[in-house]
Amino acid sequence: MTPDAFNSLTETYLPLAHQMGLRAETIGDGVATVRMPFNGMSLRPGGTVSGPAMMGLVDYAMFAALLGAIGPVELAVTTNLNINFLRRPAQTDVMAECRILKLGRRLAVMEVTLFSDGDDDPIAHATGTYSIPPR
Amino acid sequence: MTPDAFNSLTETYLPLAHQMGLRAETIGDGVATVRMPFNGMSLRPGGTVSGPAMMGLVDYAMFAALLGAIGPVELAVTTNLNINFLRRPAQTDVMAECRILKLGRRLAVMEVTLFSDGDDDPIAHATGTYSIPPR
Amino acid sequence: MTPDAFNSLTETYLPLAHQMGLRAETIGDGVATVRMPFNGMSLRPGGTVSGPAMMGLVDYAMFAALLGAIGPVELAVTTNLNINFLRRPAQTDVMAECRILKLGRRLAVMEVTLFSDGDDDPIAHATGTYSIPPR
Amino acid sequence: MTPDAFNSLTETYLPLAHQMGLRAETIGDGVATVRMPFNGMSLRPGGTVSGPAMMGLVDYAMFAALLGAIGPVELAVTTNLNINFLRRPAQTDVMAECRILKLGRRLAVMEVTLFSDGDDDPIAHATGTYSIPPR
Repeated sequence: MTPDAFNSLTETYLPLAHQMGLRAETIGDGVATVRMPFNGMSLRPGGTVSGPAMMGLVDYAMFAALLGAIGPVELAVTTNLNINFLRRPAQTDVMAECRILKLGRRLAVMEVTLFSDGDDDPIAHATGTYSIPPR
Repeated sequence: MTPDAFNSLTETYLPLAHQMGLRAETIGDGVATVRMPFNGMSLRPGGTVSGPAMMGLVDYAMFAALLGAIGPVELAVTTNLNINFLRRPAQTDVMAECRILKLGRRLAVMEVTLFSDGDDDPIAHATGTYSIPPR
Repeated sequence: MTPDAFNSLTETYLPLAHQMGLRAETIGDGVATVRMPFNGMSLRPGGTVSGPAMMGLVDYAMFAALLGAIGPVELAVTTNLNINFLRRPAQTDVMAECRILKLGRRLAVMEVTLFSDGDDDPIAHATGTYSIPPR
Repeated sequence: MTPDAFNSLTETYLPLAHQMGLRAETIGDGVATVRMPFNGMSLRPGGTVSGPAMMGLVDYAMFAALLGAIGPVELAVTTNLNINFLRRPAQTDVMAECRILKLGRRLAVMEVTLFSDGDDDPIAHATGTYSIPPR
């Protein structure tokens, strides 16, 4: 799937992601990058990006990398997600870089690193597993 | 903090949670229950509740149990969250039951179980850690 | 499987667990309890039980609860394990209480709480997933 | 700390790691590599390396990277560890590559990837947090 095809699919199916303005920018061979715009919806006390907004971004980035690899299997579902928050995000967009660690027939394990746009120090790091339905 | 005080605080500070309609129903001695209403925002392909919506609910429930125990320390932040999705949610409200496993001076570790309202089989189970700022 | 049958099976197959002296004490309907004796092998700086010893205990307790539920499927394998260390263990045996959260056809998700023998405050809490091979 | 200094320290303090034959091979700027020899102690059904052995290796690699960065603070303790098992290990040594994601004053978050010696496909991936005592 191209980023455009993926973003169109999720526009229909994932209202929360759509409302948060999540958009895949690149989808490659087992990788994807996704942007979360900085806006009022994602805030938490202190004026920075909230944890739940970053978790939504992680899940979306994994979905993009996975569907980039296996096609539009929209019933693939997250079975596990683990995230460590590392640094206070800047008041700017958050970028997610996802990489597939293992793509099996039934399970895919992925890793996602989050950055404040323009900064090299990761603000969060996550791993997760998607279950792939029989096709 | 009472559920009302907690919900008022988050209404101001957590726009995403507010928009999802999250509300603490009980806050007790190291425990809290939170309701997430079933509505359009939380959907995913297949018509069920999305993973990111459930992760937002988990984080909110941990925040409720923690602030119930230590008072309105709104700068407490999640440092780690791990969630396992267990069963397909029903098309109804999701209830979160949070329990503090360990309340230290600097870190609190909590456990959250999610249920479809009216059903005893858990749909997701999570653990997480909050960092408590010096007071 | 009974605790005896399970302990015999692992005696043959899991030399590390055997050497650590791990023994299932009860195996019930989706639950199991396992004892890890306090001995020189499991120590860490400070004279308490090491994290890796406790992780071995968690994995063994999940294996006991799972094989108690599905029989001697020794090729079932851990796919994910997450553990939070909560309190400094006492210089005594560690008890593990495992509970199956979800037993599917392909995956089982379990929760394990660790206690210093005779103390009610958990010293660690873990969740994990086993993959069940086709039978 | 050099690999030699680290291995000497753990020889005294971590009997389980010593018995498993774990040895740091390199310790650099926020990174470390550790070798686990293939031997009878680490086996599981199927003749491959057991999960608990790999978890012990992960914890040791994080300890090496951390003490490489902050010096011989042997009372630093793991607070969280999450591991995903990705592929069946080969019947050979396992190599761990650890990288510090965030080194704070009180907490360090690290990532560890495990490989069968001589193979580029990871067999497991883990993240973990160490708590650093006040110095």
